[in-house]
Amino acid sequence: MALFTKADITSWERFYRANVLSALSGCKAAMLVGSANNAGQHNLALFQNIVHLGANPALIGMINRPETATPHTLHNIRETGWFTLSAVTTNMIAAAHQCSAKYPADTDEFEAVGLSKTLMGAAAVPAVKESPVQALLSLVEIVPITHNNTWLIIGEVQAFSIADGLIAADGFVDMIAAGMVCTIGLDGYAAPQLLQRFAYAKPGSAVVSLP
Amino acid sequence: MALFTKADITSWERFYRANVLSALSGCKAAMLVGSANNAGQHNLALFQNIVHLGANPALIGMINRPETATPHTLHNIRETGWFTLSAVTTNMIAAAHQCSAKYPADTDEFEAVGLSKTLMGAAAVPAVKESPVQALLSLVEIVPITHNNTWLIIGEVQAFSIADGLIAADGFVDMIAAGMVCTIGLDGYAAPQLLQRFAYAKPGSAVVSLP
Repeated sequence: MALFTKADITSWERFYRANVLSALSGCKAAMLVGSANNAGQHNLALFQNIVHLGANPALIGMINRPETATPHTLHNIRETGWFTLSAVTTNMIAAAHQCSAKYPADTDEFEAVGLSKTLMGAAAVPAVKESPVQALLSLVEIVPITHNNTWLIIGEVQAFSIADGLIAADGFVDMIAAGMVCTIGLDGYAAPQLLQRFAYAKPGSAVVSLP
Repeated sequence: MALFTKADITSWERFYRANVLSALSGCKAAMLVGSANNAGQHNLALFQNIVHLGANPALIGMINRPETATPHTLHNIRETGWFTLSAVTTNMIAAAHQCSAKYPADTDEFEAVGLSKTLMGAAAVPAVKESPVQALLSLVEIVPITHNNTWLIIGEVQAFSIADGLIAADGFVDMIAAGMVCTIGLDGYAAPQLLQRFAYAKPGSAVVSLP
């Protein structure tokens, strides 16, 4: 084992530091966030830092980088109050990664990277047609993270579409059959392979594997 | 594809709903959070909703469920201002899952589930000795998520230990060689298999794979 301190971290080159630090918090989901402005300009952006906040109400949170670096999604969500989440699958990782490029505001990333649209809800918010999991969310709150000018965008799931056959009898979603990927660090994409499911854990009981 | 609305979601049985909803936001990291209270009682808890907030300062955020459901980690971090993050690997998924059981406050989960301790920093905060990635964080802020009584705990990485040979020349951390796992839904554990790394994406350029 090697030990590194805050002084080491601070001394590192910017991209080296970002690669290392992004790994300390583990694997991340790879999701594409679709949005539109009031003029109907569509946007698609790659988000990796996404949390399940709760199921009732059905709240999802996601971290938006500083507004100067990635302004379009944040602007659109503020303006319309809507966004979509589409799961990235193994066959769309190159297109999803290209969505992280800094396109001008008037570029439609769906067209730029070659993904198709499906429009969700009365607000017709664009999601990725190729994705097996597409969710429509309404804005609940944008929480400023003052320490580094990032933002926690909180949305409530108003509807979602999911490919047939993915939801088991107990509600478990077969993300692996769906082809959903996770990210490793800033630029690695990985396919999860299921090891085990476990029953709800209780003190004093042995861990029980689910079939 | 099948479409479900908020009315469908609300009508579902509690665990079914939690299983489905936790999948909409994708795969999650599996990390063990170590903490202590001022009396020296150690605690170890499984966290799945963790975000990389930024590398400079090196900030990590994690979602704590409502305090009534999972009070000990939150209490300890408030009291001491310190916590650790240890990556869960394939050989410790059963022990990690068992840490999600609701043990009494005076139970040391390290002992209950059979994981060893390494004490980090002057504050001697416990981390998981078996883990190849152990980070010591100081509390920066606890942000209340008022909509469902959850909390975003923000910490700054003050030091970390990592197994030899995991960091590549560009800072990419080989989480797969380390055996780090992700979670699928509430109770599934998966091993990621690397598909591809891509170069920094730019508008107008083709996506470039890294070796």
